[in-house]
Amino acid sequence: MTGTLYLVPNLLGAVPPASVLPVRTIEVAQKLDHWLVETPKPARAFLKTIGSARPIAEIAIHALSGSSSDAQWALATLRGGHDVGLLSDAGCPGVADPGAVIVAAAHAARIHVVPLVGPSAVLLALMAAGMNGQRFTFHGYLPVKPEARATMLRTLEQHSRIDGSTELFIETPYRNVAMLDALARTLQPSTRVCIAADLTLDTETIECMPAEEWRREDHSRFDRRPVIFLLQASK
Amino acid sequence: MTGTLYLVPNLLGAVPPASVLPVRTIEVAQKLDHWLVETPKPARAFLKTIGSARPIAEIAIHALSGSSSDAQWALATLRGGHDVGLLSDAGCPGVADPGAVIVAAAHAARIHVVPLVGPSAVLLALMAAGMNGQRFTFHGYLPVKPEARATMLRTLEQHSRIDGSTELFIETPYRNVAMLDALARTLQPSTRVCIAADLTLDTETIECMPAEEWRREDHSRFDRRPVIFLLQASK
Repeated sequence: MTGTLYLVPNLLGAVPPASVLPVRTIEVAQKLDHWLVETPKPARAFLKTIGSARPIAEIAIHALSGSSSDAQWALATLRGGHDVGLLSDAGCPGVADPGAVIVAAAHAARIHVVPLVGPSAVLLALMAAGMNGQRFTFHGYLPVKPEARATMLRTLEQHSRIDGSTELFIETPYRNVAMLDALARTLQPSTRVCIAADLTLDTETIECMPAEEWRREDHSRFDRRPVIFLLQASK
Repeated sequence: MTGTLYLVPNLLGAVPPASVLPVRTIEVAQKLDHWLVETPKPARAFLKTIGSARPIAEIAIHALSGSSSDAQWALATLRGGHDVGLLSDAGCPGVADPGAVIVAAAHAARIHVVPLVGPSAVLLALMAAGMNGQRFTFHGYLPVKPEARATMLRTLEQHSRIDGSTELFIETPYRNVAMLDALARTLQPSTRVCIAADLTLDTETIECMPAEEWRREDHSRFDRRPVIFLLQASK
């Protein structure tokens, strides 16, 4: 009997698991003793927080290396009859995070894949921004160099104006302030810009206003926090 | 003291709330006695399922009408010091569902917006498809007429080939089979197509394979089920 590949969302920070994970997600994760994880240390912290059924030292934890050995390990374990949990360092595996190649390999091998419910910063930000949720694009990271970044921001704004779409992206946290400065400086005054920081944490901050208002704001309060950026141009 | 606008995810079907909603989401929703909802009947069923603290007859339920009176009701209630819950018929308000204009009005009025964790078919499908989660676009509904639909599918496939992106969309459930036939017939043989049906329900089915394999499949098993479609072209 082949095992099932469970896609297990991780917490977005130090919060009680019950605040962001359904009981079913916690119960499934407590019983899994084979894991494929982005990084072992936060994975062990997660297993401790949710209260694994087994001592953590007895749980098989394979770190994703980016090589084909990841899928080989997963498929061999699943074919050996064991369920496997796929876990990233924060949020949902495979969404703005590694893990998709493992899921693709499981489908190719006709292995049962079950996504569990939990927090995703991208999804929570989209809900919370009040922008178009019928049409949206997530772009991952934008170019770092100022000129290429400004060009990309204008391209996204133009795309949003034509399609009415929401454009989402992320940035390395120590560059948040530079990104927000660029957004305020580069975009049309009426383009709405939303910053969703520390989602699900006690320090959660979600601020949405036109670019022209961001120009008058001090951006340093977003320095080094996990943030999702969103924009929507006016028609 | 102004109230808080809570964005409350609804179940995706008849499942125990604890299987898809964190305890925090349930506890917040149990205490809310002012709601802005997509449709009152499923909203009352939701309040009954989660066990509202008050008798449902005493809870204020305002149905979204699509007019400016929705935001007026929400802002007046919030300014009156009451918290308000925003709820759609299934999944997350504002994501492939109404509600975004209310959230936008709240931000414009500097009202505190809190998105709660729960199930989103779009997000679960993206996790479960094993496709690119660093770059994806949700398109809502595609054109219905066969020629316009085929043209759009080729456009999405082309976009996916160039950007490596995942393209997601939905369809009215009674047209699922026609859509799947069109995908199998229109796309390049190697383009991966994923169908995620009945997510989080006992009948959950997630099938991902190249278009050429879908050509050999009977598609009728997806008739009239809630489905998310995803595709990713090969390079």
